[in-house]
Amino acid sequence: MAVTVAVDANGADLGPAEVAFGAHAAVLADPGLRVVVFGPAAEVSVRHERVAVVDAPVSIAKEPDPAKAVRGTPEASIVRAWKAVAEGEADALVSGGSTGSALAAGLFGVKRARGIHRPALAISVPVPGRPFLLLDVGANSEVRPEHLVQFAHMGAAYARAVLGVDRPRVALLANGSEATKGTPDVIAAHAALAGMDGFVGNVEGFTVASGEADVVVTDGFTGNVMLKTMEGTSRALLGAVREAATSSLRARAGGLLLRPSLGGLRAGVDPEAQGGAVLLGLRRPAIVPHGSFGERGFAVAVARAAQAVRTDVVGLTHAALERAGALRRAPVA
Amino acid sequence: MAVTVAVDANGADLGPAEVAFGAHAAVLADPGLRVVVFGPAAEVSVRHERVAVVDAPVSIAKEPDPAKAVRGTPEASIVRAWKAVAEGEADALVSGGSTGSALAAGLFGVKRARGIHRPALAISVPVPGRPFLLLDVGANSEVRPEHLVQFAHMGAAYARAVLGVDRPRVALLANGSEATKGTPDVIAAHAALAGMDGFVGNVEGFTVASGEADVVVTDGFTGNVMLKTMEGTSRALLGAVREAATSSLRARAGGLLLRPSLGGLRAGVDPEAQGGAVLLGLRRPAIVPHGSFGERGFAVAVARAAQAVRTDVVGLTHAALERAGALRRAPVA
Repeated sequence: MAVTVAVDANGADLGPAEVAFGAHAAVLADPGLRVVVFGPAAEVSVRHERVAVVDAPVSIAKEPDPAKAVRGTPEASIVRAWKAVAEGEADALVSGGSTGSALAAGLFGVKRARGIHRPALAISVPVPGRPFLLLDVGANSEVRPEHLVQFAHMGAAYARAVLGVDRPRVALLANGSEATKGTPDVIAAHAALAGMDGFVGNVEGFTVASGEADVVVTDGFTGNVMLKTMEGTSRALLGAVREAATSSLRARAGGLLLRPSLGGLRAGVDPEAQGGAVLLGLRRPAIVPHGSFGERGFAVAVARAAQAVRTDVVGLTHAALERAGALRRAPVA
Repeated sequence: MAVTVAVDANGADLGPAEVAFGAHAAVLADPGLRVVVFGPAAEVSVRHERVAVVDAPVSIAKEPDPAKAVRGTPEASIVRAWKAVAEGEADALVSGGSTGSALAAGLFGVKRARGIHRPALAISVPVPGRPFLLLDVGANSEVRPEHLVQFAHMGAAYARAVLGVDRPRVALLANGSEATKGTPDVIAAHAALAGMDGFVGNVEGFTVASGEADVVVTDGFTGNVMLKTMEGTSRALLGAVREAATSSLRARAGGLLLRPSLGGLRAGVDPEAQGGAVLLGLRRPAIVPHGSFGERGFAVAVARAAQAVRTDVVGLTHAALERAGALRRAPVA
């Protein structure tokens, strides 16, 4: 199936050229894929018959108030990229800029999917051997139970369709495994999810090591703290291991012998291999790679966006929410 | 200064004898310390002139509803230990049982300190080289801004008096470092803390690695998730390192050479060296070591309880809250 992905090349740490190289690599690997790159054409040197470049040098990736910037800057690359998706010139979006501007421009340009309360930001957390999808990690600092219920279905559909998890086990993040643990909102969401196919109940922060869930659902405040705590803990520990491995001649020799085997560990926790975060709940799929990614990470992101289109994640999510009776009802006219 | 610590020996994984050995070790190291051990006397073989044993075999450490168990079981060891503190026979408490029953019995027996909204559970998080105090880690799943403000002062007083941090840097946990980030409650607490001595603003989950705060304040839901995420991430990573270190002959040799240096890392992240969690906001200090601790961890816990008495943490906290105008006002009669 032929798919077109709109790529906003502005905002990435390594610059627009790096994003475009990633898009190019994805196109080379997928004969059914076209990309349209929005960014400063003068900085994008990629040439391929299935890569179009639209000169859009204006970036709002660093604006402190994304919603305001989106409304006031129609020429911004992220706004133009989403417009291309809204008008059917592209099927999905990949943004090298900030999550905030990608979300604001998405809400403005293509809008929420039908029946969705709030979009959520999900991330595939790289744990050696058993990655899991965590959402929300920052789009909503506060949520109601019905939002958590939708996040559960949105995450499950994405895990199945794009991450290839056959029967995703879905869990709520809480401060205890019993159904009575958590804030009143978490307890209410637990009750509402009880009948969901694949729902395994509450998990605690230990889930990083236990691998007991494929999709972990929480509010954007807690999810953001959890994600950054994992990053911080990994950094502190691996830093300490590295320090230990240079603390004496003997340790240095040990570190050298061990290094090739640790390469596998590094690959297992490599965020670029996961392609970054995904915005769920909009009318079209959108992937938001981390700003620090290089060509490789952007290539994975574009491939994931194409996969989300081909598997119709948005339609699958809608069908699941409809079956569960969890669609937002239209406001009374 | 002579101090008496009441020790509830029930509920610990390794049994009452292990808890009593820890109390004994603390007594041997501190000539001004007395302990009274509450537990099954038949299982406690420790003999020392400054160790009294009260036969209290009934345990409510595993009861699902601690508040109910406390009210219905006056003979329980934790209830009797707190009663000894309330009646002035002891100055502080150490419990080998569950946090829930220690808190419930404390609220029932010695009550909240004057002007405190809610007690909080704080834990010294062992990060190599730069431990920090995290609170609340589970006593309150939901909090109001004025609770967070009190937690900040309670944590700062404890860090200064017991952990020996000269000028503790106090931070709020949030999903971004700007003052506008977080839930409305976090934003309100940030504004209220702006004038506090040592307040450094928001920190994110990365704080584990960055060491930018000595006291990190959050609600009990998020704190609990953060704490368990750190544990889970450490376990996953160290497990993967261990696996890598046995994956080949070469790696095995490297692991053996490296092992002595990694011992230092293990010591740096050893939770027993920190003595466990502390209940702040009651009229008397209480330490709740982790149920899995051995003699060593219980000895540290008893020493910390004695230190909290000698430095008058409860009085220091009250004075700080009074200066900050953050004491709970007495309800209108």
